[in-house]
Amino acid sequence: MDKPFKYRLTIAYDGTRYSGWQIQPNSNSIQEMIEKALQTLFKRPIRLIAAGRTDAGVHALGQVAHFCLDLPFSCDRLSYALNGMLPHDIRIKECREAEPSFHAQYSALSKEYHYHLWLEKTVDPFYRLYRHHVCDSKFSFSQLQEALPYFIGTHDFATFANVGGSVATTVRTLTRIELCPQEGGVRLEFEGEGFLYKMVRNIVGTLLEVATGRRRVEEIPHLFAAQDRRQAGPAAPPLGLFLAKVNYPSISLNEEKWANSLPVSLES
Amino acid sequence: MDKPFKYRLTIAYDGTRYSGWQIQPNSNSIQEMIEKALQTLFKRPIRLIAAGRTDAGVHALGQVAHFCLDLPFSCDRLSYALNGMLPHDIRIKECREAEPSFHAQYSALSKEYHYHLWLEKTVDPFYRLYRHHVCDSKFSFSQLQEALPYFIGTHDFATFANVGGSVATTVRTLTRIELCPQEGGVRLEFEGEGFLYKMVRNIVGTLLEVATGRRRVEEIPHLFAAQDRRQAGPAAPPLGLFLAKVNYPSISLNEEKWANSLPVSLES
Repeated sequence: MDKPFKYRLTIAYDGTRYSGWQIQPNSNSIQEMIEKALQTLFKRPIRLIAAGRTDAGVHALGQVAHFCLDLPFSCDRLSYALNGMLPHDIRIKECREAEPSFHAQYSALSKEYHYHLWLEKTVDPFYRLYRHHVCDSKFSFSQLQEALPYFIGTHDFATFANVGGSVATTVRTLTRIELCPQEGGVRLEFEGEGFLYKMVRNIVGTLLEVATGRRRVEEIPHLFAAQDRRQAGPAAPPLGLFLAKVNYPSISLNEEKWANSLPVSLES
Repeated sequence: MDKPFKYRLTIAYDGTRYSGWQIQPNSNSIQEMIEKALQTLFKRPIRLIAAGRTDAGVHALGQVAHFCLDLPFSCDRLSYALNGMLPHDIRIKECREAEPSFHAQYSALSKEYHYHLWLEKTVDPFYRLYRHHVCDSKFSFSQLQEALPYFIGTHDFATFANVGGSVATTVRTLTRIELCPQEGGVRLEFEGEGFLYKMVRNIVGTLLEVATGRRRVEEIPHLFAAQDRRQAGPAAPPLGLFLAKVNYPSISLNEEKWANSLPVSLES
């Protein structure tokens, strides 16, 4: 095998000043920042594969990415070195060796996204970059709660997907949507196997229309049936969205075996 | 009376990009931002008096300031208008009418400052501007806890005061110092009648020397006795410090009477 060593990074970032995860010409992407740091460290180009792209201004608590390497390296030292080179709004939370079959995107069982709403009159200045401010006296928790079950389960989410991803099907399964009260407002937690382009933000946009009385709950099935992006509400802004967690199968026997076979120098 | 109307603002700000509370030539102060907004609103210069100055990079959850006005104005509308003009890292949390004798600095009974320490290896990117990162394997909570009582009570804090304030005495009383565990580390809460220039940051700097084994607890009384700033530890950086709260006497009968005598238009 050409590059027999594979590493898995868990990454947190404040997306405010970035063009998103993915490298694009003339833009400031998170992927590019980390790849450049890896290149400086290993003196060779390294390609990162992430669990999922995040858009401009979207944050991450637990993005996962992998890369392959032709030489072994200590995970502790890798985290330390990368964090030393990266700006403070991108942090490597964890680095571990991954089994050869691991793939940050294809091995993922599910992803969790959180969307944070600030519902009080004045946004705490320390949350100004991380909460979508909805200040509407008509905002109704019960209306919002009533709308959630329509989105849970397996549906064709074409109405809630922006064009942009090349996908074979717009059918997706959301296993959980939860409303969690928190300081200043609520957090909407979404969990699913896969998400379409801008799907969470488009769903939140429509949920907000329902919560503020601009759309009736009963219209939601018609929105799904229309399979037309223009029927749904506008996308909620990126600043409220966090890629919270990517779930993978528990460490396999193979991976354990592989980890145990690592040179001792890697485990320092 | 020339300006019979007095207003009291409670203000939160992220101090990161400011030169501090106080107006200074060629600098970007929080006082100037708010005074400019007031001047735009009322078409006349208005002077704000704050409970206490905060230094460059220091934050506030509950700074209090007052100003006088020759005309009455609705408090709700004032908050709304100011927040509409101010950048999002400065927020007016509350505006209320104050009795004629109220003075943001002189009426204060006590102030509370919080100093936030991040003690884990990797600083959460969302806290990078609001926590002092102390990553030292020798950090000892019990050593830190043991040092706190030396600072509680009435002492001459000359060793812990930078030159800069014109003060009659360097004797101050700290009524409370508390160690509160929180995500990623701890918060040190300080409460006292008055604080000298850089006193909290200088105390924290010395506490950190004790907590990390660079100074023995037994040295603290000698530090106080020396009355020499150079004997104490370096000031802890401003990003961890928050002016949390200013305490005033409960609303007096006078103030209530005065509030009730306001024109009806003010209470909308």
